[in-house]
Parts: sequence; structure tokens; C-alpha cells
Amino acid sequence: MRSLDWVNEAVEMVDQTKLPQTIETLRVETVADLVAAIKRLSVRGAPAIGVAGAYGVAMAAALHRPDVDRGAFDAAVASIRDARPTAVNLARMVDRVLPLALESAESALTEAHKIRDEELQASIAMGDRGADTVIELVAASSGPAEAIRAMTICNTGGLATVERGTALAVIQTLHERGVLAEALPVETRPLLQGGRLTTFELQQMGAPHRLLVDSAGPFLLAQGAADVVLIGADRVAANGDTANKIGSFSLALGAAHANVPFIVVAPESTVDMATASGEAIEIEDRGAEEVASVRGVAVAPNGTDAVNPAFDVTPVGLISCLVTDKRVVRFDKGEVL
Amino acid sequence: MRSLDWVNEAVEMVDQTKLPQTIETLRVETVADLVAAIKRLSVRGAPAIGVAGAYGVAMAAALHRPDVDRGAFDAAVASIRDARPTAVNLARMVDRVLPLALESAESALTEAHKIRDEELQASIAMGDRGADTVIELVAASSGPAEAIRAMTICNTGGLATVERGTALAVIQTLHERGVLAEALPVETRPLLQGGRLTTFELQQMGAPHRLLVDSAGPFLLAQGAADVVLIGADRVAANGDTANKIGSFSLALGAAHANVPFIVVAPESTVDMATASGEAIEIEDRGAEEVASVRGVAVAPNGTDAVNPAFDVTPVGLISCLVTDKRVVRFDKGEVL
Repeated sequence: MRSLDWVNEAVEMVDQTKLPQTIETLRVETVADLVAAIKRLSVRGAPAIGVAGAYGVAMAAALHRPDVDRGAFDAAVASIRDARPTAVNLARMVDRVLPLALESAESALTEAHKIRDEELQASIAMGDRGADTVIELVAASSGPAEAIRAMTICNTGGLATVERGTALAVIQTLHERGVLAEALPVETRPLLQGGRLTTFELQQMGAPHRLLVDSAGPFLLAQGAADVVLIGADRVAANGDTANKIGSFSLALGAAHANVPFIVVAPESTVDMATASGEAIEIEDRGAEEVASVRGVAVAPNGTDAVNPAFDVTPVGLISCLVTDKRVVRFDKGEVL
Repeated sequence: MRSLDWVNEAVEMVDQTKLPQTIETLRVETVADLVAAIKRLSVRGAPAIGVAGAYGVAMAAALHRPDVDRGAFDAAVASIRDARPTAVNLARMVDRVLPLALESAESALTEAHKIRDEELQASIAMGDRGADTVIELVAASSGPAEAIRAMTICNTGGLATVERGTALAVIQTLHERGVLAEALPVETRPLLQGGRLTTFELQQMGAPHRLLVDSAGPFLLAQGAADVVLIGADRVAANGDTANKIGSFSLALGAAHANVPFIVVAPESTVDMATASGEAIEIEDRGAEEVASVRGVAVAPNGTDAVNPAFDVTPVGLISCLVTDKRVVRFDKGEVL
């Protein structure tokens, strides 16, 4: 499914705040509404936010014409760029479309379409290369890869990109090739992106799947319930250490214990050669509230304090390989980035 | 705190269905009400249910006098024994009090008090022996044990026994000795006994603590955030393999990776020499509903299937030692049961 697109002079997106109970298309016709949609997480995932930002600049060029009132146009663009200051993709894509928007609204829209199509092509490439790699590694570790059971975490599908995604694109490609026996998403506390979003996407693509609580993942790997673990990445350091959603490290320990391939799937833009290793990656703590409640329901006594690391770092020694839109790096064979 | 006791001719218990938001004492004056309380989990944890059953038989002897109407008395006792057929402690304690109830209601009550006191003594013994062991192992692995940070899972405190508990009794004893820096309970999805009950008990005992989502446990161990992991047990096999709440295995992998002692605390009655190893332990799947919702709120699309193992098995090779009410078995030194 496509999470967002340009339709009849506006951005249309699946409103992720309503999922999984309601599939609602949100139509956004003004820059202010687009900024609000990004801020309240109606669209999420770095690549998807980048595409939304690109279309936002094209929209700004049409509605707040820079040749008429440059100040109003600049303010509109700044509001898009600042909608989520920590998502580096957003600023990067805004800045890419900006010079074209100063030429014409049409040129800006053409560039935004190009960004959308590049993201989609990257997902297709990761899906194909990833599926080839999974089949190769599974065949080597547990025999013929005709009925693959793939465990995954968080949401790395079309909802986080434009379509298809990263790790979930690989699972979708395996399903399309007829070799996926079952996907096993873990729910991904605290925000439950696995339970709410990945299950929804698997349902949409008709892929067989069963949900797990996070702590069941490593044990089910030990029980032989999965042939491969596939995760996305927030950042891949120069040595291959990988930062991703909290719980990835547990699955990596479980995969290593069970001798199951553990594969990271992420676009080249995620590789950060300026970060030497995982030790240099700062771990954000998102506060107690997300842990003490689930979708507004208290699950701990009032005032309970919590440690809430948003992501963890999996050392390269626990990662079989990295699959990007351009290459496969087999850490298990001693290859380096 | 005492989770249940005999007060003025009736059983009084903390109603665990109301925790953590409300601390409500439930007074139970009839056998039918006691059976209902056990069935709806107002009292839970094998030792606590066993004590409740013992008092239930004493209550039956007083209210349904066997010398007057043996049929009514037998029916009352059978309803207690069958309230939760899988909890072996319940049947065992009912059968222990039964012959005394046929002598007199007073003898039955005396035996029930004895069972309550034995459970409490076992918890005190586990707490003392466990605290000694923790201090010894932490001193050996990470230096002077004056500010111990202890990670734990599920609820193994007074709410699951009569008072103090098993793994949580050790944490309480460390706190009373002034050497507990912090307890780190994991929330324990799907039923959140760590988030709802263990935090509540730690709050009651005034012990510093912070809650974690389950998947943060292994990563925080790798980060050096804890000095020891303490868990309870549902069953310990003859070779030391230990069945416990799902997520225990993940913490064991994390502890081994971080070189942190991993200690099982359980009464002798949990050791099952008739079960050779963990492979012989059947893993109960509790169905999809617990995973797809949290306290009545949907966290996955309607109809989502799930794998939901209620517990896992940690192989003895990942366990430093077992602490019971009678002994310490140092698996890390090659000792056997």
C-alpha cells in the first residue's frame, strides 16, 4: 500500500493515528495542515516524512508564490522544515526541493515526485536484494528455503516509507515469491508499532502472520520457530554496529543463541561513516509516561518512574549482514562497510 | 505487606484485580465467596492460593459441619480444590488440612495457620539466603556490593505468597540491609504483573525502583545498568533448567552477555526431580486475546492471531545459581541438584 501521495493538487495520506482500527485517508490542501499532520504523527517514518516535506515545499510554491511574497513563502518552508526537527530526512528533502520551488511550482512538484519515486525504487531494491539474501542464508543454515518464517520488530513497511519499506519490504517480496510461511512481528513496546502497524500491513498484503509480545521473540527463536530475523535501522555506524528500535538487541542475542541469521535492512542514507561505532551513538530516553501507560490506560501505579531507551545498539558481531538499496555487506564473512 | 490472612473468623485479602490503582481489602466469609475470589484472581500466586485453600477448608469445617452433613461439607471442599485445577499447591494444601477438618474446625484452623506461617518462614529464609548470595556474587563480579541494582521480572513478592515472596523477598532483604541502590522490574507483558504489582510492592516497601519495558532489560544489562538479575520459578527440572514467566530467557541471555549473575529464587517445592530437563516441560499457549489487547484496549487489528507462550525455559547453563528456603545450588561452580 502507498502511505502517502500527491493526488489532485494535494497530499493524501493514510492517517496513522487512526490505525489499526480505522483506515482513513487524510487529504491535506494547505501547508499549515501538512505541518500539523507531521507533528501529530499522522505520517511517520523518516523516508515518508521526507516525501511529505518535499510535497509541502511544492505546495508552498503554488499557494505562497515566492515571486509575489517571498517572506510568506520562506515562513511556510521554515514551518515544514521545523515540523519535526530530529528527523534529518525532512530537512534534507525540503532543502533539495527549495531551489526548484524558487524557479516554479511545477519544477518543485517534479522534484518531489522524483523523491517519492526514488524512495519507492529503494524499497523495491531492498526487497529484492534482501529476499535473495534471506533465501541464501536460510538455505545455508536450516535447509531449503521454501517456507520461510521471518521474525521482525517495529514498523518498517510502507507506512514508514512511501510503499513497501525496508525490512518489511523483504518480507513482502518473500511473500510475493511464494516462499513466506509466516511473518512473526513482535509488538514493540512501548509504542506498539509492531502490534498496531506491522500486523495491519501484513493483513493488507495477505501475508500469514502471528503477533508476539517482545519477550517471546528470543525464546521462540530458541524453540526453532523462525528461520531469520529482519530489522530496519535508525543509524548504522562505520563498523556496522546498528541503532534500531529498543528490542532489536534482544532479538539479536536470541538469533545468535539459536544460530539464526540476523539481517539489517536499511537505505544507504542510514549508513553514517562519521560515527565510528555504536558507543558513539547517544541513546534517547523518552520518559516514563510511555511505559506507565498503554494507549491512555494506566499499567503501573501513578507516579511510577521508568527507564525508557527509545532504541538500542546491536554490535556488529551479532549481525549476519546489512542489505541496502545498493549492496549487501556480509559481516558474517568478515566484510566491512 | 501480607496479601491474605485470617481475621475475625474470615479470610481477608488484598484484592489483586483492583491493583495498582486501588488498594482494597476483600473480606470473604463463605466458601462460595472464597472460590469466586480464587477464580477471578483476586488472590494469585501458587503459595498464596495454597494458603487461601487451607483457610477455605477450615471455613468449610465451621460452616458446613462434616459431623452434621458430610455431603455438604465434601461438596464445599471439592469446590475449593477445583477452583483452579492447574495450581498444584491448592490441591496439596486442601488435602493436608482435610483430615484435621474431619476432627474439628479448630484443628483445621490451627493447621491452616501453620501452613501460612511455613510459607512466611520460607520467604524469610529465601530472602536472607538470597541476599547473602547476591552480595557474594556481585562482590566477585563487579566489586563491593554496597549499592546493588537488581533487575527482576513478573511479580514474585508478597502478593504471590503470604508476605515477602521469592525473588522480590531477596530484593526486600537487600533493601532492609541498606544495600539496594535500585530495583529494575520489567513490565512483563502480556499480563503486566511487573508493571502493575511489583512496582506497587516496591512502592509499599519504600524501595527505589524504575520500570522497564521487557525488551529494554537485556540492552540495559549490556549498558551496565544492573548488577544482578533475580527471577522466581514455576518449575525447576532435575538438571536445573528453569521454567518461569515468558521473558526470563531473554534476561538470562542478556545477563550472560553482560557477565551479570542470574539467580533463580524458589521454594524447594518448585524443584521437580521427576522432570529430567527443560525439554520435558510443556509450554502453555494462552491464546491471542492477551497479546492483542492491554487491559481491555485493543493494541492490534481485530482478528490478529498471536503466539502467546505463558512461560519459557532457561537452560541451566545460563543460570548462576538456585536459592531455595533450604539451600543454595551454585550451577556456576558445577554443583547439581
